[in-house]
Amino acid sequence: MINVQQAERIITRCMKSLGANRVPLEKALGCVLQENITADRDFPPFDKSLLDGIAIRKAAWQKGVRAFNVEGIQPAGKPAYQLKGKNGCTQIMTGAVLTKGADCVIPIEGIIIKNKTAYVDKNFSLTQANIRPQGSDCKKGHLLIKKGAVLGPAQIAVITAVGKSTVNIVKKPSVAVVSTGDEIVHLTQSAKPYHVRPSNAYFIKAALQQLFLERVNLFHARDNRRSLKKIIQTILKRYDILILSGGVSMGKFDLVPEILCALNVKVLFHNVRQKPGKPFWFGLTRDHKPVFALPGNPASTQACMYRYVIPYIQRTLGLPEQKEYAKLAKGFAPQTPFTFFLPIRIQSNQSGAWLANPVPTGGSGDIAGVGRSDGFMELPAGVKNVKPGFRGKIYRW
Amino acid sequence: MINVQQAERIITRCMKSLGANRVPLEKALGCVLQENITADRDFPPFDKSLLDGIAIRKAAWQKGVRAFNVEGIQPAGKPAYQLKGKNGCTQIMTGAVLTKGADCVIPIEGIIIKNKTAYVDKNFSLTQANIRPQGSDCKKGHLLIKKGAVLGPAQIAVITAVGKSTVNIVKKPSVAVVSTGDEIVHLTQSAKPYHVRPSNAYFIKAALQQLFLERVNLFHARDNRRSLKKIIQTILKRYDILILSGGVSMGKFDLVPEILCALNVKVLFHNVRQKPGKPFWFGLTRDHKPVFALPGNPASTQACMYRYVIPYIQRTLGLPEQKEYAKLAKGFAPQTPFTFFLPIRIQSNQSGAWLANPVPTGGSGDIAGVGRSDGFMELPAGVKNVKPGFRGKIYRW
Repeated sequence: MINVQQAERIITRCMKSLGANRVPLEKALGCVLQENITADRDFPPFDKSLLDGIAIRKAAWQKGVRAFNVEGIQPAGKPAYQLKGKNGCTQIMTGAVLTKGADCVIPIEGIIIKNKTAYVDKNFSLTQANIRPQGSDCKKGHLLIKKGAVLGPAQIAVITAVGKSTVNIVKKPSVAVVSTGDEIVHLTQSAKPYHVRPSNAYFIKAALQQLFLERVNLFHARDNRRSLKKIIQTILKRYDILILSGGVSMGKFDLVPEILCALNVKVLFHNVRQKPGKPFWFGLTRDHKPVFALPGNPASTQACMYRYVIPYIQRTLGLPEQKEYAKLAKGFAPQTPFTFFLPIRIQSNQSGAWLANPVPTGGSGDIAGVGRSDGFMELPAGVKNVKPGFRGKIYRW
Repeated sequence: MINVQQAERIITRCMKSLGANRVPLEKALGCVLQENITADRDFPPFDKSLLDGIAIRKAAWQKGVRAFNVEGIQPAGKPAYQLKGKNGCTQIMTGAVLTKGADCVIPIEGIIIKNKTAYVDKNFSLTQANIRPQGSDCKKGHLLIKKGAVLGPAQIAVITAVGKSTVNIVKKPSVAVVSTGDEIVHLTQSAKPYHVRPSNAYFIKAALQQLFLERVNLFHARDNRRSLKKIIQTILKRYDILILSGGVSMGKFDLVPEILCALNVKVLFHNVRQKPGKPFWFGLTRDHKPVFALPGNPASTQACMYRYVIPYIQRTLGLPEQKEYAKLAKGFAPQTPFTFFLPIRIQSNQSGAWLANPVPTGGSGDIAGVGRSDGFMELPAGVKNVKPGFRGKIYRW
């Protein structure tokens, strides 16, 4: 049986980028850029007034002129007006192009305008031009955002500024989630005492929603060779990634490995030295689509999702790997020789340290315990007693 | 002029919850629960087999029986079968209800079945029952998730488990974003040299998308009293929150404060001792809807969004306040007596400490500089030299 690190390596080797996709800018938040963004013109694109005030010739000021003839208005969004008189000025607005002939702006706070003349306050002293020259932030052609960057609001603003209404991003995979098991009833159906609800499918979907994936669909298959085969066959044609939950352990109705095999999905491993989640199954279709078949206990599905599936999809999306560590607040003795995924609650203290508190649960089937945890800490295989203060890698829902 | 803390207090006092809203569970990720979630039945809802194997009477095992008559199959999702013979058994599956009469499960790995008889391996020793008794995780009526909790994938799984397909959450506000200024052209139009693109509007929309808001619409108003008034009037009837960008400083075409006043929006403050973002304007309509009018320089809009608007909306949504701190990697001398919002890049080192590196930008209008920052650090007013290692509150895009 392989261990957690081996399973991770095998899955990483199967990483498959789906190429680029041009999308409207509004759809690009959280995506990874697949092109370089360069300045389409100088920034600012013109000599820009930084203030509301009057635009004058500095030469006039230096000659002692303190009253200027208002020749016109220079609003933002209009071409530059040409100053005529030596002592002329325009009333200029913040963000407006600088009036031609003018080379400095006196702020409105220092001015009184009467009868088309702007009088500068006696106490006002002109120490700066209050102009941002064309191209002083960056020149046309300058690389603003590199291919591979994750697009947050700041990057979206920059792409808007260079006039791009669409952008090339790493294509997002479509994902089908199939829950299996005759004990599972649809959420809107009434449950008999021996039925359970599809909490794994909803967990998986919510986890994928966090990645801003767009096409995530839920399916349910009964423990029946024919229907299971038919559903999986159809899905493998239409989706990039298949995630199954349940049906992978050794029971009479654990049909998933057998059906996947019959559909030419090549098994790369089955069973991993981990608890929970030992019967985890992973394979590839002939056209290299990954199939993750997760054990159906809630804690198993959840651990496998965050330990393997989410990192796989993040890599596919081109997102940087997120490594997070915390200190264990209490000691813990795992009852297994395997790698143990310990449910934790995370607490961040004022000095910036992160503490992980073990959450008591009733084993891998305890759905009620799940709602109390923020994620899990990975405890290495073979360790019998983990001491308080142990620094471990954490995975958060 | 008020300071940053006063502005924050005034805005916080105007916080208005929009009440509860019942939504399909698929739409509830990231929302705040407005009801208690209790167990609708015991968990597990029946004595559950933890393994694939055979369900037997322990009494028979204790009498030395090692071969059991297979009376039937006990799959998951089916009612409990009633064992007949004293030495009878069922082939039971993981997750199945325990067969009536049986009180223990022998794992499949320890068994060989031939001719309807299950033979237990000689070396197998029965140390545990391999059953999770009904109600051992929690009893019917037990409080599983408290009102006020933020719904992540784990909570979504728990709500699914108790059979709720809809859930009561704190209602999300609808937000209208209005950019103003004749210099702004639509992203799909060609820009003249004196035009700029609506990067603020796209920044604001992306920032709101991060909060999973659903109704966020962009509008543009020209610097014209009539059109501005008409747009704002219509929006105030149809949206819960109004965010304006631009038109709030002292220029001839900075019409926003005047128009808002004419529409009976009560000004609570105009101008804050901060840089960038001094001309920030905030008011309330008669029916207590907030109106945020942000200065139009990109850095000003961004700072005001993350310092005031996003926290306001998070509070409205019932989300806990996020306080994040980092250490300044380099010293910095703010050129203002006001509170300074310093653009930073954030770096997290292996010991878990967060470092903030100042990003050089060309002032509050430098859109190109924006794409290089992860957010800003708030430097207190009146400090002339901030030393390396200074611990400040940070705001991340």
